[in-house]
Amino acid sequence: MPDQDWKTICTSRKKKQNDSIPPEWLIETPADYQSNVLEIPSTCGLLTLHELEITDTDIEVLLHKLRSAEWSSTEVTTAFYKRAIIAHQLTNCLTEIFVPRALARAKEVDDHLRTTGMPIGSLHGLPISLKDQFSIKGLETIMGYAGWIGRYAESDSVLVEILYECGAVPFVRTNVPQTLMWGETYNNVFGRTTNPYNRYMTPGGSSGGEGALIALRGSPLGVGTDIGGSVRIPSAFCNLYGLRPSYERFPYCNTLNAAEGQESISSVLGPMANSLAAVKIFAKAIIDARPWRKDPLAVRKEWSEREYALAEHGNGVNMCFAIMWDNLVVKPHPPLRRAMEMVKKALEAAGHTVIDWEPHRHMDIYRNAENIFAADDGYDYRAACELSGEPLLQTMSPATDAHKYALDEPMARTIVGERRHVNAWELWQLHKEKRAIRKSHLDHWEATATRTGTGRPVDAIISPVAPYTACPHGCNSDAFYTTFCNALDYTSCAFPVTYADAALDGAQAPHAFYNHEDEAIYKLYDPKLFHGCPVGLQLIGQTQEEEGVIALTGVVDQALKALGKK
Amino acid sequence: MPDQDWKTICTSRKKKQNDSIPPEWLIETPADYQSNVLEIPSTCGLLTLHELEITDTDIEVLLHKLRSAEWSSTEVTTAFYKRAIIAHQLTNCLTEIFVPRALARAKEVDDHLRTTGMPIGSLHGLPISLKDQFSIKGLETIMGYAGWIGRYAESDSVLVEILYECGAVPFVRTNVPQTLMWGETYNNVFGRTTNPYNRYMTPGGSSGGEGALIALRGSPLGVGTDIGGSVRIPSAFCNLYGLRPSYERFPYCNTLNAAEGQESISSVLGPMANSLAAVKIFAKAIIDARPWRKDPLAVRKEWSEREYALAEHGNGVNMCFAIMWDNLVVKPHPPLRRAMEMVKKALEAAGHTVIDWEPHRHMDIYRNAENIFAADDGYDYRAACELSGEPLLQTMSPATDAHKYALDEPMARTIVGERRHVNAWELWQLHKEKRAIRKSHLDHWEATATRTGTGRPVDAIISPVAPYTACPHGCNSDAFYTTFCNALDYTSCAFPVTYADAALDGAQAPHAFYNHEDEAIYKLYDPKLFHGCPVGLQLIGQTQEEEGVIALTGVVDQALKALGKK
Repeated sequence: MPDQDWKTICTSRKKKQNDSIPPEWLIETPADYQSNVLEIPSTCGLLTLHELEITDTDIEVLLHKLRSAEWSSTEVTTAFYKRAIIAHQLTNCLTEIFVPRALARAKEVDDHLRTTGMPIGSLHGLPISLKDQFSIKGLETIMGYAGWIGRYAESDSVLVEILYECGAVPFVRTNVPQTLMWGETYNNVFGRTTNPYNRYMTPGGSSGGEGALIALRGSPLGVGTDIGGSVRIPSAFCNLYGLRPSYERFPYCNTLNAAEGQESISSVLGPMANSLAAVKIFAKAIIDARPWRKDPLAVRKEWSEREYALAEHGNGVNMCFAIMWDNLVVKPHPPLRRAMEMVKKALEAAGHTVIDWEPHRHMDIYRNAENIFAADDGYDYRAACELSGEPLLQTMSPATDAHKYALDEPMARTIVGERRHVNAWELWQLHKEKRAIRKSHLDHWEATATRTGTGRPVDAIISPVAPYTACPHGCNSDAFYTTFCNALDYTSCAFPVTYADAALDGAQAPHAFYNHEDEAIYKLYDPKLFHGCPVGLQLIGQTQEEEGVIALTGVVDQALKALGKK
Repeated sequence: MPDQDWKTICTSRKKKQNDSIPPEWLIETPADYQSNVLEIPSTCGLLTLHELEITDTDIEVLLHKLRSAEWSSTEVTTAFYKRAIIAHQLTNCLTEIFVPRALARAKEVDDHLRTTGMPIGSLHGLPISLKDQFSIKGLETIMGYAGWIGRYAESDSVLVEILYECGAVPFVRTNVPQTLMWGETYNNVFGRTTNPYNRYMTPGGSSGGEGALIALRGSPLGVGTDIGGSVRIPSAFCNLYGLRPSYERFPYCNTLNAAEGQESISSVLGPMANSLAAVKIFAKAIIDARPWRKDPLAVRKEWSEREYALAEHGNGVNMCFAIMWDNLVVKPHPPLRRAMEMVKKALEAAGHTVIDWEPHRHMDIYRNAENIFAADDGYDYRAACELSGEPLLQTMSPATDAHKYALDEPMARTIVGERRHVNAWELWQLHKEKRAIRKSHLDHWEATATRTGTGRPVDAIISPVAPYTACPHGCNSDAFYTTFCNALDYTSCAFPVTYADAALDGAQAPHAFYNHEDEAIYKLYDPKLFHGCPVGLQLIGQTQEEEGVIALTGVVDQALKALGKK
């Protein structure tokens, strides 16, 4: 047991965080009842017009100006840092704040360009935010555990090493939930992150700090991780693009994690950003850096321009997409349904075919995945909490004023069955089951070739990321739309479509509920409550189709824009 | 418990096997004391001159003649089948024998070519032998377990499906040891496979049936599996080329296995053949078939002509190889040392640099790997044996006349420590350790860039496959030279170098023994005993370097040939 009470340690660490904010960057924060804070960075007066210009600039232009020394990394990093600190004051999205260090790195990058005339790499000078798992030498990696306070990293994560090689400037780290296994963002050390579209709502999780930060344009590019939806959920809830790559396509080596060593369904890292261009730039930069030099598990597969040109998908013309309107486990809320209808219309207008996806063995998939996640019966999480004596969180609901439809027993828990710590052989049986399900699902997908009209199986699946948009804190109980891809290792990319609109997305009559969670989520819907929340979807490709999935998401994005919907 | 005694069941199954041999293909077998039987296929009189020509033909010519209909698949399959049956009578290398079915397939292939004028695929008409794990619909997959007799496959392994797509003719299945976790080949159902170079010796294992069969040219191409050396050990012991690819580069889906679901160190499948050309033909054919369409775990990475051209290795000129003369766990016997000296001389003569490899953390690697293999404390193996009541084998030594230096307690057992069935969290800790070791070893490899003179890390490592050549039954106790690659997921390819020669490979004075196994293996060496055994080595590349490793092995092979050593 620690010498000090965990609450004292957390309070002290939180104060240290506050103290790391330059006092001149403190703003007058709006009252708590102001739910939408998206305009504050522009209106609070801290950012100069030039800094607003920088932080509002598209990433391609930003990188061009950095490479050509039109803008220095120092001024760009300063601009984003100030905006990130504003975002933090509005949504509590940051963990590690290290202004002098980041600016020293920016200066180093600027000096390099000035003295050599050459940019360091493809991300030259770009500030990049990182989820609180990616260690930076000399900084703590607390990752939401009170007991990890004081864990100073002795080396950089491989991702960070590669970002440095590419010329990037890691500049903040962002908040997570305790254990990382929640689709919301709250822990005992740094507290709760809120959604800048509506602070009564969660930004999602577990990469929720990234979600809130990037939504406020406090970072041009962030990196999250995803084991059950943790990149895509905050992306969808915060109006972002976010890629869940396949296992080990990007280097996870020396990144801290909960339940580290659990390899049955691996966590992956992925980019989150305001544009799909940023997602592609990150993916190509990391893969072009040949991560297998540094990470023994990284897939040795070069960036494929051929796959990005959709050579495997009829070169991108006359493709066939399938929409998963409902996974038959939880029915999506009306705004999601409308977003899918928009996508269908847009794709058809662009000359593609759209068919209905037939859900295949979803409950088998989820039961297997949840049993894998629970294989140690939470031993790892409890052990991490015992380091400080902090309690293992049982809910993401606020202590007071919890929403009435927050579920105490979400299905992810109830389907596990008898909870106990399984042995190695029993885990192997879960692996056998997992492999059989993956084979069955792949065969199901391949069999669609008979009904696509293209001669190929469905080129991609369009699906909700969650059955709702951003929801009240404590209410994000269902991660099955995303865990689906983690369990099957399908590549997927979240993308924004529209906003919930009380006028268009009226409540619907109850259906025959699939289960108790479906019923609770049905009841949660209230057109006024959700009005204005971003509505995101995901595009799902097959395993290790990162290049194709980014390009296919671009096809959908362009189709929506062509219809004037975005 | 079964109705019948397991011995009765096994005897009956063995009789069924014997009955499946066409009586006209039975030969007069030599006396047991005739140890070398390599010439018998040519001298026994069963094969016609034309059949001898077919079975002695290089694979490229064979495939050309099949594609051009100069030779029919029926005559080629018949020739190899007869030779395989001869090999079986000499070494007991086969399990499933299904002549009518294979010939029906060959006829189908011939009919296709005749009616369409087109070959089915790149392996058109080629007979291929398969280790007794690759299920073929309608046939039993017994895999060395008495309790699996009567397990008729309801579908083909994905590999078999792809072989059919490529036009191949699967024609025999080959023997394995019970549990597959031995470097020799004996089980209670089909008995012991012997080495045609010296039947007092083991052909190695677990793909030992393939080793013996192909050494006798009873198959132009075979497929084995490798979790700790099971492709490379029989390749080295039987004078063959054999590739251990990285995890999931080739499709393992729906292939039966022992300890199925153990994903910490995965078994892989790989080709075994009399030529490196056959290894490449197999690898390219399987990858070109896009196995990820059918196997959800298969790596989505196309065959790379760029990597095969050694673009990552200075285009194959002035490379730097490192030789692992000794892993500091077990010192190799004199013939292995001489083979490595031959390779060094040949590579230097070809313009390459050869440096010494510095072994790095081998005992850590082996302890971690063996603890992973033992994570269920043998529960899976015992359960398989309990199906029939057969005993779990504790040795590969013959019941009588066991060699005096056969080790009862090989180090693979003694380093595991307390034997018990670990739980999921403990297994995850082994994974963490495994990842840390892999990172450490990769960094060690990359750091060689400072001493290669090429600006690159060492292009490949040359190492023994085992510290000895083929050895007396029961004496192959050490698999650490090969398990090394499985634990680190390094691609490696076994290749023949020379033959043990009592005149050249005299006994050496004892060294300071590293451990009890090293001492036993030192004592095992007897120049006369090993005289004439093939000496193979392996070339080790990094993870997912299949194309490069095949090409680099070709560089070594050509260099040896240029020196007139092969």
